This record gives sequence, C-alpha cells and structure tokens, in this order.
Amino acid sequence: MANLIQEFNDYRARMNEVILSKNNLVMKRLWNLDTNTYEAGALDTKTKEMLGLVASMVLRCDDCIKYHLGKAHEEGVTTAELYEVFAVANIVGGTIVIPHTRRAAEYWEELSAQ
Amino acid sequence: MANLIQEFNDYRARMNEVILSKNNLVMKRLWNLDTNTYEAGALDTKTKEMLGLVASMVLRCDDCIKYHLGKAHEEGVTTAELYEVFAVANIVGGTIVIPHTRRAAEYWEELSAQ
Amino acid sequence: MANLIQEFNDYRARMNEVILSKNNLVMKRLWNLDTNTYEAGALDTKTKEMLGLVASMVLRCDDCIKYHLGKAHEEGVTTAELYEVFAVANIVGGTIVIPHTRRAAEYWEELSAQ
Amino acid sequence: MANLIQEFNDYRARMNEVILSKNNLVMKRLWNLDTNTYEAGALDTKTKEMLGLVASMVLRCDDCIKYHLGKAHEEGVTTAELYEVFAVANIVGGTIVIPHTRRAAEYWEELSAQ
Amino acid sequence: MANLIQEFNDYRARMNEVILSKNNLVMKRLWNLDTNTYEAGALDTKTKEMLGLVASMVLRCDDCIKYHLGKAHEEGVTTAELYEVFAVANIVGGTIVIPHTRRAAEYWEELSAQ
Amino acid sequence: MANLIQEFNDYRARMNEVILSKNNLVMKRLWNLDTNTYEAGALDTKTKEMLGLVASMVLRCDDCIKYHLGKAHEEGVTTAELYEVFAVANIVGGTIVIPHTRRAAEYWEELSAQ
Repeated sequence: MANLIQEFNDYRARMNEVILSKNNLVMKRLWNLDTNTYEAGALDTKTKEMLGLVASMVLRCDDCIKYHLGKAHEEGVTTAELYEVFAVANIVGGTIVIPHTRRAAEYWEELSAQ
Repeated sequence: MANLIQEFNDYRARMNEVILSKNNLVMKRLWNLDTNTYEAGALDTKTKEMLGLVASMVLRCDDCIKYHLGKAHEEGVTTAELYEVFAVANIVGGTIVIPHTRRAAEYWEELSAQ
Repeated sequence: MANLIQEFNDYRARMNEVILSKNNLVMKRLWNLDTNTYEAGALDTKTKEMLGLVASMVLRCDDCIKYHLGKAHEEGVTTAELYEVFAVANIVGGTIVIPHTRRAAEYWEELSAQ
Repeated sequence: MANLIQEFNDYRARMNEVILSKNNLVMKRLWNLDTNTYEAGALDTKTKEMLGLVASMVLRCDDCIKYHLGKAHEEGVTTAELYEVFAVANIVGGTIVIPHTRRAAEYWEELSAQ
Repeated sequence: MANLIQEFNDYRARMNEVILSKNNLVMKRLWNLDTNTYEAGALDTKTKEMLGLVASMVLRCDDCIKYHLGKAHEEGVTTAELYEVFAVANIVGGTIVIPHTRRAAEYWEELSAQ
Repeated sequence: MANLIQEFNDYRARMNEVILSKNNLVMKRLWNLDTNTYEAGALDTKTKEMLGLVASMVLRCDDCIKYHLGKAHEEGVTTAELYEVFAVANIVGGTIVIPHTRRAAEYWEELSAQ
C-alpha cells in the first residue's frame, strides 16, 4: 500500500484505540453513529460518501477528506465523478479549498495506483 | 407560492440585479461558473444539488440552503433522501447545524405543500 | 415569559417536531446523544453548559447560544461568570464574535428579568 | 438616515452599553484595541477598513460587514473599489459569501443615498 | 520532556520572539490581553482553560489545542474530565473534530507520561 | 531560494499539474478567475494582495497565506505594513489566528532574506 495511505490508516487506528480505551460513552456512541450515517438507505453508500467528501472539503479537514476518498474509491467513484465533487467544493467554499484539493488529488493518485 | 419561498426569491432577484448593475467582471464570471457547476456531467444534476446542499448546510449558510432546497425539489429529491442529506450534514458538522436544519425543514415543508 | 425566550422556544419545539416526524434514525440518535453530553459526569452540568456556550459562541450560532444561555441560567451561572465566558469567546474567536455577544447579552437580560 | 443604517446603529449602541455596564475588563480592553487596529499607521485607515471588510465578508459576519461598510463610506471608498473588495471576498470565500454580498450591496445603496 | 511537547514549545517561543521584535503595538497588546483572559476571576483558571480548550477544538486549531492541553495539565484536569471536554467539542463541532481529537489525545498521553 | 519557499512552490506546481490534467472545466475556469481577481483595477495589485492575505489569515489557510505573502513581497509590501495586516487578521479572527501568524512570520523572514 502506498505511503500516504498506510501512514494515514496506521495513525488513525493507533489513536482511535487510545481514545476508545478511555471509555467516554459519548465519544463511543458518536463514532457508532458516524458509521451508521453512511450505510445505504434512501440514498446509496456511494452518494453518501460523496456527500461526506464534499462536506469535509468545504470544512477543510484533510484527514476527513482522506477517509472519504478511501471510501469513495472502494465504492467505485470514477476520477471524472470525483473531480466534479472537487468542483462543487471549490465553487461553494472558494479558493481556500484549493490547497486541500491539491492534497486530495495527491491521495487519490495513490489510491488509483494500488 | 408560499411566503418564505416568495420572499427569498424576490429579495435574491432584486439584489442580484443591483450587484450585476455595477459591472464587476469577476462577480459576473463567478456567477456564470456557479451555474455551470451544477450542470449534468459525470454526475447528474440531482446528485450535484445534494452535494451543494450538504456543503451549504455544514457551512451554515441559510440562503444557500434555501437555494439548493428549491433545486433539489425541482430535481425530485424525496423527503427520505433529503433527511439523509440532513443526517450527513449534522454528523459531519455537529449540533451547530441543527438550527439551520430547523429552518431547512420549515422551507422544505413549504416547497412540498406547493 | 419574555418575548425573545418564548419565540425561540416555540419555534424550536415546532420545528423539532417536524424533523422527528420524518423518522430519520441518525437525526434521532444524534439528538439523544446531544442530551447525554451535558449530563453530570466527571464534570458537572454547569461547567458543561459553559463549555457548550463558549463553543457555540466561537462558532457563532445564535440559536445554539440562546439554548445554552437558557441552560446556564437554570444552572445558576452568575452574570459575572457569564461575562468571563463571553471574554474567552471574544478573545479566542475575535471581534466577529461581538455581534453574537450583543444578541447573547440581550437574551441574558430577558432571562435575568424573569 | 435610512432605515437599515439607523436600526443597525441603534441596536449596536444599546447593546454595547449593556455589555460595558457589566465591567468585564477583557471585553473593554478588546474593544479599545479594536479601535486602535484601524488607526492610520504604516497603512492608512481607508486600506485598513477595506481589510476589515474583506475579513468580515469571508467570515460571513453581516453586522461586522455593515460596520466596516459605514467606515469605508466615511473614508471615501468608491463603489468600483468596493465591488473589487467584494470580488476578492467571493473568490477567496466562495459562493457562500454571495448572500452576505447581497445584504452588503443593499446596505451600501442606503449609505450612498444619504 | 517528550518530543511533541518540546517541539511545540520551542517553535512557539522562537516565532513569538520574531513577531514581538517587529514592535506592532496591536499584536503586543492582544497577547497581553490573551494572558489576562485566563486569570482567575469569577471563574477559576482550570475552568477557563477548559473553555479555551473546547473553543480551540471546535475551531480546529491544533496549536491552540496543544497550548490549552499544557495549561489544563498544569491545572490538574483529569483524563476523565478532559475526555468530557472532548465529547462536548465533538458533539457541538461534529465529526470533523475527530482528527483534531486524535492529535489532542496523542499530546495528552505525552503530557501524562512526564 | 530558501527551503520553505522552494518546497511550497514545488509541491504547488506539481499538484496543480495533476489537477489540470483531469480537464475539469469548472476547476480550470475558477483558477483563471482567481488570477483575474488580483489584477489592477479600481484598486492596485498591492492592495488586492493584502486583501487576499488578510482573508486567507482569518480563514486560517496556511498555503493561501504563503501564496499571498509571496505576492505581497513582489509588490513591495514593507514589514511594517505586513504586520498591520497581521494585526487586523488577529483582531478580527481572534487568537486562533496566532499559530498561522507564526508560520506567516517564519515564511516572511525567508522571503525577506532572499
């Protein structure tokens, strides 16, 4: 697995374990709820992951973007579709989204090269 | 047309006219580009409008939300689908999105009653 | 009950009912979790409500501010304590928090006059 | 004086008085510092007011925008200059700045009509 | 002293010196005011540091979070209390706060290991 | 060229190329429009770059800050002028802007040392 992806997943797994070990019930339940949110319902998971991605982009959260890029890749989002999500994020959120788009593009190249 | 919808559309149209009358080229071109962004491409307009909506919700822009709710309604988004968009916005953006979700719900009721 | 308080509570109750009537499970569970968050634990409810208030102020969510002001009033937060919460919010969040502080101050006057 | 301007100034003056009456030293000193910030130094006041305006626009604070529009008007900012400030704000901050630009445009029309 | 803590403190001290050397009066006075804000008053310093922390978390400023974690540690905030502050931040600010919570958890482990 | 500057410019150029290679028309046109925004008009480029900088600072986008610092340096903004832009950003945006100001100060030292 490429470097950026491995690094992100490892750090995420390691720190999630630390956080969960403290047994804060609100944190645990929020994380379960987060998982439920993207399950297929009236909308399919692919659409929901694109919604999570665009929301993460306009809020400019690089790690959230990486997470949803990984999921979007699993759900079969194409590069053309992805860049239309990027376009919505950049128009709604403005040019401050560009640096996050650069890092997203880099991460997507790694996902696509696997 | 219901009251909230009429009021929003009227004010928007009146002030857009004021802004465009000043002939600022960047503003004009940004607005054209905004229109292009939601045209069908690799993703269909319905999906793009849901992307614009969730982005507007997490950025907590009530007028942007109203605009995309209007478009989502035209594109045939169902109430069940809409509330799944609301769910993504509230999980990603947190409880500060709730007051905007209330106003969105109110506006959607008016759109649905037309 | 004073005007601002009544109006806020009525609208909130009415729209919460609309939202809950749609039976979106994620929304329902997030709202339950929101309630749990402020229950006494290692920190007492008064402290947690001040945490919720300062978070709402720096994120500039007027309705969230009103909600936590109501709770802070119930928990016996004094005016001197409240203004120290306002001070933290204004220093951390900057002068863009001032207009929200004005509306918070107005609402607090109504709560205090009850 | 036009309606929007009078209303804004009156509410602002009334609530500032309430806040200052509580004698929170941090709030008082922050407000003094806020005034110092826009005094002429290496940059003139007109430039600084445009900086305050664009910052208020991308942070989407309508009352802050009104305040700096009033000051920009006093400093002789022209309508063409103002709309270039609007353009920077809309490009950097994205289309979520548009609704705030509409309200800014409306307020500027009132200032210009005085 | 652990690596993350040392690195953060060193860079902070070095760059603060650069900034202060330029003698911008507004910057200097804002920094003094920042210090005053967390001094004991109607609320004790421990509470104020938790307020500063939750505000920094919802605004997603990693360096601000580290600074307030250091202060919270000095003030004797327990791990159980800290995770309740984290819970408020994650509920109010949403899942975009999670990556910042991971980095906060990592920094707290280092502070606790000293 | 100093290390931070070289690194920023190289990564930016490399990833811009990746993004543009995907031929998303909205992204391309937004980037052209971004360039137009800072061209001399009613306001000169120096003023517009300071507007772009303060907007980037309050929105806390480090890469956007670096970009506008580079342009401000080319336009002959002095260190005294720059720190007045920093002051506006820190007052409007609050102490959460301080860590970004530290990184901006570091980058400016490199630009000034060239």
